[in-house]
Parts: sequence; structure tokens; C-alpha cells
Amino acid sequence: MNKVAIIGAGRIGRIHGKNAAHNSRLELAGVVDPIAEAASALAAELGSKVISLDEALVDPSITGVIIASSTDTHLDYSVLAAKAGKAIFCEKPIDQDLERARSAAADLGEARMLLAFNRRFDPNFQALKARLDSGAVGHLESVQITSNDPSPPPPSYVAASGGLFKDMAIHDFDMARWLLGEEVSEVYAVGSCLVDPAIGELGDIDTARTVLKTVSGKLCVIANSRRSGFGYDQRIEAYASKGLVRADNVLESTVQVWSEAGASADRFQNFFLDRYAEAYRREMDHFADMLEGAAASVGYADGIAALALAEAAARSVRTGLPVRT
Amino acid sequence: MNKVAIIGAGRIGRIHGKNAAHNSRLELAGVVDPIAEAASALAAELGSKVISLDEALVDPSITGVIIASSTDTHLDYSVLAAKAGKAIFCEKPIDQDLERARSAAADLGEARMLLAFNRRFDPNFQALKARLDSGAVGHLESVQITSNDPSPPPPSYVAASGGLFKDMAIHDFDMARWLLGEEVSEVYAVGSCLVDPAIGELGDIDTARTVLKTVSGKLCVIANSRRSGFGYDQRIEAYASKGLVRADNVLESTVQVWSEAGASADRFQNFFLDRYAEAYRREMDHFADMLEGAAASVGYADGIAALALAEAAARSVRTGLPVRT
Amino acid sequence: MNKVAIIGAGRIGRIHGKNAAHNSRLELAGVVDPIAEAASALAAELGSKVISLDEALVDPSITGVIIASSTDTHLDYSVLAAKAGKAIFCEKPIDQDLERARSAAADLGEARMLLAFNRRFDPNFQALKARLDSGAVGHLESVQITSNDPSPPPPSYVAASGGLFKDMAIHDFDMARWLLGEEVSEVYAVGSCLVDPAIGELGDIDTARTVLKTVSGKLCVIANSRRSGFGYDQRIEAYASKGLVRADNVLESTVQVWSEAGASADRFQNFFLDRYAEAYRREMDHFADMLEGAAASVGYADGIAALALAEAAARSVRTGLPVRT
Amino acid sequence: MNKVAIIGAGRIGRIHGKNAAHNSRLELAGVVDPIAEAASALAAELGSKVISLDEALVDPSITGVIIASSTDTHLDYSVLAAKAGKAIFCEKPIDQDLERARSAAADLGEARMLLAFNRRFDPNFQALKARLDSGAVGHLESVQITSNDPSPPPPSYVAASGGLFKDMAIHDFDMARWLLGEEVSEVYAVGSCLVDPAIGELGDIDTARTVLKTVSGKLCVIANSRRSGFGYDQRIEAYASKGLVRADNVLESTVQVWSEAGASADRFQNFFLDRYAEAYRREMDHFADMLEGAAASVGYADGIAALALAEAAARSVRTGLPVRT
Repeated sequence: MNKVAIIGAGRIGRIHGKNAAHNSRLELAGVVDPIAEAASALAAELGSKVISLDEALVDPSITGVIIASSTDTHLDYSVLAAKAGKAIFCEKPIDQDLERARSAAADLGEARMLLAFNRRFDPNFQALKARLDSGAVGHLESVQITSNDPSPPPPSYVAASGGLFKDMAIHDFDMARWLLGEEVSEVYAVGSCLVDPAIGELGDIDTARTVLKTVSGKLCVIANSRRSGFGYDQRIEAYASKGLVRADNVLESTVQVWSEAGASADRFQNFFLDRYAEAYRREMDHFADMLEGAAASVGYADGIAALALAEAAARSVRTGLPVRT
Repeated sequence: MNKVAIIGAGRIGRIHGKNAAHNSRLELAGVVDPIAEAASALAAELGSKVISLDEALVDPSITGVIIASSTDTHLDYSVLAAKAGKAIFCEKPIDQDLERARSAAADLGEARMLLAFNRRFDPNFQALKARLDSGAVGHLESVQITSNDPSPPPPSYVAASGGLFKDMAIHDFDMARWLLGEEVSEVYAVGSCLVDPAIGELGDIDTARTVLKTVSGKLCVIANSRRSGFGYDQRIEAYASKGLVRADNVLESTVQVWSEAGASADRFQNFFLDRYAEAYRREMDHFADMLEGAAASVGYADGIAALALAEAAARSVRTGLPVRT
Repeated sequence: MNKVAIIGAGRIGRIHGKNAAHNSRLELAGVVDPIAEAASALAAELGSKVISLDEALVDPSITGVIIASSTDTHLDYSVLAAKAGKAIFCEKPIDQDLERARSAAADLGEARMLLAFNRRFDPNFQALKARLDSGAVGHLESVQITSNDPSPPPPSYVAASGGLFKDMAIHDFDMARWLLGEEVSEVYAVGSCLVDPAIGELGDIDTARTVLKTVSGKLCVIANSRRSGFGYDQRIEAYASKGLVRADNVLESTVQVWSEAGASADRFQNFFLDRYAEAYRREMDHFADMLEGAAASVGYADGIAALALAEAAARSVRTGLPVRT
Repeated sequence: MNKVAIIGAGRIGRIHGKNAAHNSRLELAGVVDPIAEAASALAAELGSKVISLDEALVDPSITGVIIASSTDTHLDYSVLAAKAGKAIFCEKPIDQDLERARSAAADLGEARMLLAFNRRFDPNFQALKARLDSGAVGHLESVQITSNDPSPPPPSYVAASGGLFKDMAIHDFDMARWLLGEEVSEVYAVGSCLVDPAIGELGDIDTARTVLKTVSGKLCVIANSRRSGFGYDQRIEAYASKGLVRADNVLESTVQVWSEAGASADRFQNFFLDRYAEAYRREMDHFADMLEGAAASVGYADGIAALALAEAAARSVRTGLPVRT
């Protein structure tokens, strides 16, 4: 069993910590958090212990570090962990600032670093990708990514979020790159504030459509809204030369009611921690693979690329013009 | 174009008359109905003319007769038409009384007679049958037929209907025979009055389950209720050695609403004339085939067999015992 | 019954002619076509007669004219019919050239003219619109229109088609306007040639994504491809403040096969004449309404507006820039 | 945390042991199995230890016993555990022999005993039951239970299984009782050997239809086959006075492929341990509830009742007659 430490004992730290603790190939050797109470609560829950950041970095038996702290610390902790020779599991995004993120290239460009874009590990999207890769529907031509939150966050969250593209769509930019299999050469985005005027007052948008075009002419549309009104809306359609592969939303159960009003299915899953519970488990399992020698399937360079697309999209909305990348 | 006359200008006569009038291979040469007003109204609507029964039978240019009159006249008109050398399109059932229906065997056993079990001509059920016959799922083992009306008829209708098995399930017995492809050797039926006590007071049931077993051991269950609560419920599942073929209910449209309550589809079609509109057209088209020489795909013998199963099911409910056939 | 004449006895003329002839409120009084054989064949099939253009226009008993001739004649025949005081049913598009189409404003701006955008009459899309208009899901925010042909037309067709936007997407521009309920202020389109290199050699594209933004900030994406690989792909998703309304593709039947490979449904309808058969009937019925006094629900101004969006989209692809409208 | 011991370290013991070990309210204090190797392997895997049956029964700190041993030992171990004052989690069935099972009534009739009919704990079936109980579709009238295995077991398994009704349908009899909410008064079953002749040679059947009727006239049909050909087929339809509630099969993923052949979904889950993984977790969680004082939701009396229905069904097949219960 490989020993790992986790930095960050908040909501997402609890998810990753649990998955590490329950993974049969990992041992959660320590929990790091400046808030002592949070650290000790999580350590107790998971049968681990509180350690300091230094201990985590110095202990040679700890070969991997899970970074689940606040976004503005991702980059610094990653660099520290890289310098200490640890394998890194870093929650997305790499950073909110592209220039800053790029400045760590010397330290992180070659690091053994898993940037945890969880959707790449979702069983449904993995099944979709496998179908595409199998060639069963020919070669890919275009992609439609639909990614809407159930309901808008409070304005205070929005204010610190980095904006819709860096906060929400960053996942979709990564999915687009993963599926398209080649780099994007042009980004056009259009946005509106249709859901909550308070978001507009903060200078942000809550509804967007982004069009990506790749070097070879493949097209991708990303649809985002801060509020679907019906649940967590996470769908992909991939058009290929012989047909279409799609992954749909996930329902609470298979139950249907048939009444005079027609057939109604159960509710859509509403919460991202439910929708991606298995994805979180699988990405931790991939980290276990890495600690046994495997290469990271998604890392620093992918984080930079997704962030660059997010900045390009934001610029496109600001200028009203397409942006070449 | 082959000339046909129709006997009966009521609701079902209007359906068959229209389909005959609009069929490019048929000419509706006359409408027969003892109620002069009904006959002339339908003749006017369809660009045909009122004729007498005798005229219909004697006119040698009329080669086919469509019998859409009340059930108790089906047998007599069929015999008259057969004796006159006409091809016969007779609305189901052949009769409500098995002995009486059998007594016409000498006249009708060899007649060119289409007994209009409309469901055999439904595009969905025909597609299901085609898949089974293609062998794509191996050989058939068992069948589930679900056949529920949207809401119960008035007691007055029930009183004259011949009972649930002869009135409703007669269609399902025919479907079972059509799909099973061999004769039924045993019938067990159980019934309850769960929908409308007035039906029970008439000595009838409104809910039934019938189990059929064929000589080779294939099994079939027929589920019937006078009231589904959600629309016209007409479904079939055919289990075969390599899988299942099923035909589902038909919806009013493809529209769905996704809301907090979940995904809801449009209403189920509620009315048999909508659900089977195309089936009625196709069975009339098959009659046109017959007038051009084709053999009837379903005829007198099938009417007798379905009626025998209905009587067996009714007996099973009465006695509480399975009935060998 | 109102008498109508049809100009054009080709494929689409046959559809409209049949629907006129079978409509209980219309009488098809004549068929006009410069190709005498085509005119007489259609007239014979529909129980009508061949007449000249002049006869159609002069005969005062003919109150409506159906224009189903080649696109380049739509405008001229419409003007002639308008001058003759006829109600006009004109197959889309109004013309391939926006300036030319606009030049007829004096004659057609006030004409009783139904511009036959058939999709507005499709039962599924009408049901979708009705749900939106009912307010059941709140107010509309954005629309996704997916409109892919089953397989690409021959290059010869493409060459004369006016290009993807005027030929295919013209329908989608009209649908967008119909659903959005306000005018589009900005158009951005991106196109690729991914399906058939011959289309690219003609200077056209076969795959496009178009983003529309309205004055109030509503967003609409139109996805087009000359080839879906799986059938006629005609879907709409309308996002509103309380949820989503969608209309899906239509299947050949409700039959499913469940096998080791999973559940497979029947094929998607492949041919637009099947998919929109009922839409064509309903638009002819709307023409009957017009002849009885109703206003056209879609007319000359809508044709101009859709054409303007098509030209804007084409310009956007050419320049790589969004186009204000 | 309540301490529990598990008896039986085979396939199902591993499932229950794991769920106990991972349940935050339970501590797996020991593993009992006559095969020492099996016991120590499971104990090691779950961080528990090997203990003897006597130790499990005598240790007062162990308050619950999980019986996951072979079927013929369920009754004896349950009686021992009851006499030792333990709460009992006993894998179904209570026994293969109704008389023998009934003979333990004095010891087990009042025991704190969870008879682990896992399907009652399946999230889909629980959601279905909740909808029924909510009254949203009125009162229940009839139930259709479809329960087909993916493929037949080897004849050796069948020979020791107690036959289709006790081995497979025992679950369905319990589901029927759970949903119908009243006792069954009549059972009719018909069976065939259609799947594997070797099963017939053993005097068993592989395909059955069972009709249950309750005192008040509610009807239930159970469809069973040893081989669906497409996966684990576990569906329920409950007909109520205002509509239908149904729970469908579970798919491997939400992925669909749309191709010329139509839309195909992913495969059906094939293995009962996948299909009911969450049910197994939930029933262990219910055992934790019991150890904290809750009453068992399903126990000895339910095991007896289901077994009685299985024997009645087998007798009905043997005699060809319905059996009153």
C-alpha cells in the first residue's frame, strides 16, 4: 500500500480523503489543514492522523500528496510537493490566473501530477469515449457539451469564482479537448445574464454558448447556464461520420409513473457529489495507479490548456469577437 | 379498381368506408344501412351512393363486401356475401356465440374472408412480428400481452358486450395465436371486479389475467383491465431464446418537459381509433390485395379459434379451474 | 369548398397537391406546369385537370394559388398571384437572393400569403411551442436547434442550392425566430467541410454551428450537418426559467430489441417527407383557414427575415466575424 | 458501534462481511467458517479476525450475528443465535423445507431477525413502493413482477436448488406480498422447460408464470425464466386506480449510440451482485438500525409466507390445478 497525505479537510477534501482511505491500494497517512479542528475531525472519521505540511513533505514513506485546499493554494502546494519528489493529486483548477499558472512550468511541467478533472473519470463519459475510440461510429466530427448547474450560487460565491468560464466551463473545456483529440484554434463565446441580475451586477454572465473550432475544422459547442431548473444537467453528444454517441443525465431511480398526464420519470440527480461520486473514486484509483508507476492521464499541461480556453472565451465575450488560440 | 360496398354506416363503418374510399385500388360503390339517414350521410361524405343490401349482393361489378354492422349480424351478412360469391371484409368478432359461429363453417370455412382483427395490421406489432420472424432473437418462448382500456365503458355497454373476454380480450387471444404460431392447449384465467362495482353487479369482471400454454409448452400471459388510468395501454413483449422484442405504447408527441419533478413525456394516446388508425388503413389495403387475388391473412378459422379461447377463459373464471382446449 | 390551383407538379407539388385534393375544405381546381406530362399525370392522379397559368390567375372561382414550382420562380408567381387577388401558398424559400426578395415588398408585404415553412406545422414542434407558451416552464431563455440531414445531396444539388444556410438552415432560422419570439441582433457562424470534400470544392460547407443572440440576450444555437449517419435528425431543446422542453426525433416504430448488446430501438425516420407528412397536411389546412378568412401565421416578412439571417450567417463564415443584424 | 460476527465466508458472506465492515455503525468482530482458509482470507481482507461459532455466540459484546452460510444451515444457526440472545441477519431463504422451517416458530417467531430479502432494499423498488404508498396513483389493483436470470445455472446447481420456485421465485413471492399489502388466497402456476433440457431431466422447470390472487381480489403475475438472453431482468409494474408505477432494468451506463440501425442503449446489468449492490448495503444498514433498537422490516414470518407460496406454486405445476393458501 502506498502512503498518501491530504492537504485540505473541507468539502472536497472529505471526498478525496474518504476515497483514499477506502482505496485498497492506498493508506491515508495524514491530514493537513491550517484549521486544526477540520483536520482532526477528518482524520478521526477516516482513521488517519493530523500531520503538518512539513511532515507530509519530509516523510519519505509518504509518496503521494493530495491537494484539496482552496484554489489559490493549488499551485504553491503543487510546486512544494513536486520539489519534495511526491506524486501529486491536485484538485482542479490549476489556478485562476493563466500567467501565474504558466510561471510554474519549470517546476510542474515534468512533475508526476494528476490534475483532477473528475469528469474524465465519470463512467458514462468514459463509456462514451470508449465507443468513440472503438471506431464503431467512424471518426469524430463535432461535439455538443451541455453543462448546466441546477441553480445559481450566491453572488458572494460568484464574486470569487473567477467567472463562469473559469469556474464552470473549465470542466467543459477539458472535456472538449479530451474528446476532440486535437487543439482548438479558435474560440467564440457569447454570454448573457438571464438567471440572476445580481450576477450581472458583478460583471459576470450566467448563460453562455461557446464555439470551438480545431485546426482540422472539428466543431464543438459548449452550453452553460448557472440554472437548469431541473437538476444537474451534464450531457454530451459526439457526432461522428457514421452516427452519434451520447451520454445522458442520470436519474434518481428507474421508477416511472404513468398517469393521465403521461409518463414521468424520476427526478434528475441534482448534486454534483452524487452525479460524480464514482468519478471521484475512479480518479483516486488512477492516483493509486500512478503511485505504482503509471503515467498521469491528465496533468499540468491540460490544466494550462483548459485555463487558456477559459480566458479566451472570457475575452471573446468582452470583445464580441472570436479569439485565435 | 375493384368495387366494394359497405354494410353499416356507424362509427366503425365510417372508418372502414373512409379507408376504402381513399384507397387507390378500391372504389366504394355503395353504402348499405337500414337507417337511411346514416347511409346517406356517409355516402355523401365519401362521394359514394346509398344502395340496398340486395343491390350490393346482386351487382356483379361489386366484388367485395365490407361488413361493419352490429356484431349480431356479422355472421348472417358474411354467409349472404359468401353465397353471392363476394370477397368478405368482416369486422371482428365473427359472433358472440361459439356454437352459432361454428355452425356457419360449411358456408364460411372456405370463403374468401378477411376477419378484421385490426391489431395484426398495426405497424408496431407488425414490426415486432417481423423481428421475431427474422430470427434475430432466436426462437420464441413466451409472450406478455398487456391490453388495458383507458377507462371503463358504461354498464349498458358492458351488459351487451358478451363479457370482458369476448369483448376486449378477443383481440388479445388473436394476437397470442398470431405470435405463438401454434395452438393453445390450456387456458387458465382469473378475474376480479376492481374498477367499477356496476360491472360486477352485471356478473362481469373488469380485471383479468389469462395464462395460455401451447402444445410445445410456450407460455403467454394476457393482462386486461377496463381502466388503465393513463390511456390506451397496448403493449407486447415477446421473449425469445436470444432476447426480447417489445412494442410499447404510442405517445401523443415526442415532446418532453424536464422540470424539478423530473422528465415527463407527453400523454399516451387515449383512443383506439387514433392508436389503430394506420392499422385500419392497412387492413383495408390487405382487402384490396385479396380482391386482386391474395389469400386472406386472417379469416373465419381465426375468428372461431379466438372465440373458443374467450369462452374457455370465461369458463375458467367461472369454475376456478384451468380449461383444456 | 374553396377552389385552389397548384403551380408545379414535381415532387413537392405532388405533396401539396395531394393534401389540397384530400382536404375536405379545398377543391383542387387545376394543375399548372410547363411540362405538360407532369401536369397531366398529377391532375389524373388527383382527379383534377390541367390548366394554364393564365387560367389559374383569371378564373375568379379560384381563390387560392399554391406555388410549388422551382425556387427561382417563387417570387414572380407570388407577385402575379397577389396582383390577381389570390391568396398565396408559397413553398419556401421566398427566394435565394435577399435584395431581390426585398424588392417585392410593395407587392407582397400586404398580400394574403402563407410562406410554407413546414416545421411550424409539425405536431411535435407545435406541442413544444404550446408547452412553452403555456408558461409551464417559465419564460424562455435559450434554444438549441439540431437539424441534420441523413446523408449529403449530390454536388450538383449543392451547387444550385444557395449554400448550406439558405438551403438547409433557412428552416432553422425560421424556427429560431418562431420560438425566440423576438428579433435576432447578432449572428455568428462557423463552418467546416467534414462530410464530402466535393462540397468544399464548390465553396460550400457541410457542417455548421450558428449562434444567434436576440436584443434581450436570449441565445440560440443551430447545429447543421449534411449527414447525420443515422437518419433525419430534427430536434429542439428550449431552456426556460423553470426547466426544459424538448422535441425528439421520430422512430419508425415503438419496437425495441433487448439482446446481449443492450436495448436497441427501431430506426429513426430517414426521409423528410415521412417526418413532416403531417406538417404538410396541417399547413395546407391552415391555407384552408386563410381562404375562410384567417390571417396567415407565417408570411412574406418571415421569409425575408429568415433569408436575412441565412445571409448573415454566410457572411459570418466568410469573414470569421459576428454580424449585427 | 455495535459488534457483529459473520458466519460463512463464501461469495455472499464476502458481500455481507464487506458491508458490515464498511458500515460506520458496525464493527465486524469476527468471521466464522468451518473452512479455516476461507475464514482467515475474509478476516484479513476486512481487517477482522477468525473466531469460532461458540466464541461468536458466547461473547456478550457481539450483539448481532450475520448468517451467510449454506441454505441448509440457516435455520439451525438462527435458532442458536436466537437462543444466545443475538439479533439475527439471516440470508434468504429461511429454509428449503416449509415444515422444517415452521418447526422453528417457537424459537424464531419472536426473534429479532432480519430475513435478508435484498430486493426490498433496492433503491428502485423502494422508490416504486414509496410512490405507491404516497397515493399519487390511487390504490393498488394488480402487480406484474418480471424476474429473469441472464443465463441458466449449471444442472448441478439446479439439482440442489430446491427448484425454480424456491430458488428464484422466492424473491418474487416476497416482493408480491410486500407490494400487495395483503395475503394471497390462491396460487396458480404453469411451467415449462424451454431453456435447457438438462433442467427438465432433473424434474425441474426453467420457465414459469404464476398468478396470485389476494383475498380482496388483487391480482399478481410473476414471470420467471432461467435465461433472459439480455441480462438480469428485474422489473415491476404496479397498476393502481389512477395509473401505473414501474421500475425498470438498470443499464451499464447512460450511453447511447445512434446509427443507421437506430438508437441502441448500453447493455443491461448482467450480474445480481451489481444490480443489488446498493440493496445489500441498505439491508446491512437496516441491521445496524435493528441493533440500535429498530424492529426488523422483514423477518421469520415473511420467510415462512414466501416459502409457503413457493410450495403452493410447485404443487400447482405438479397438479395442474390452482392451490388455495
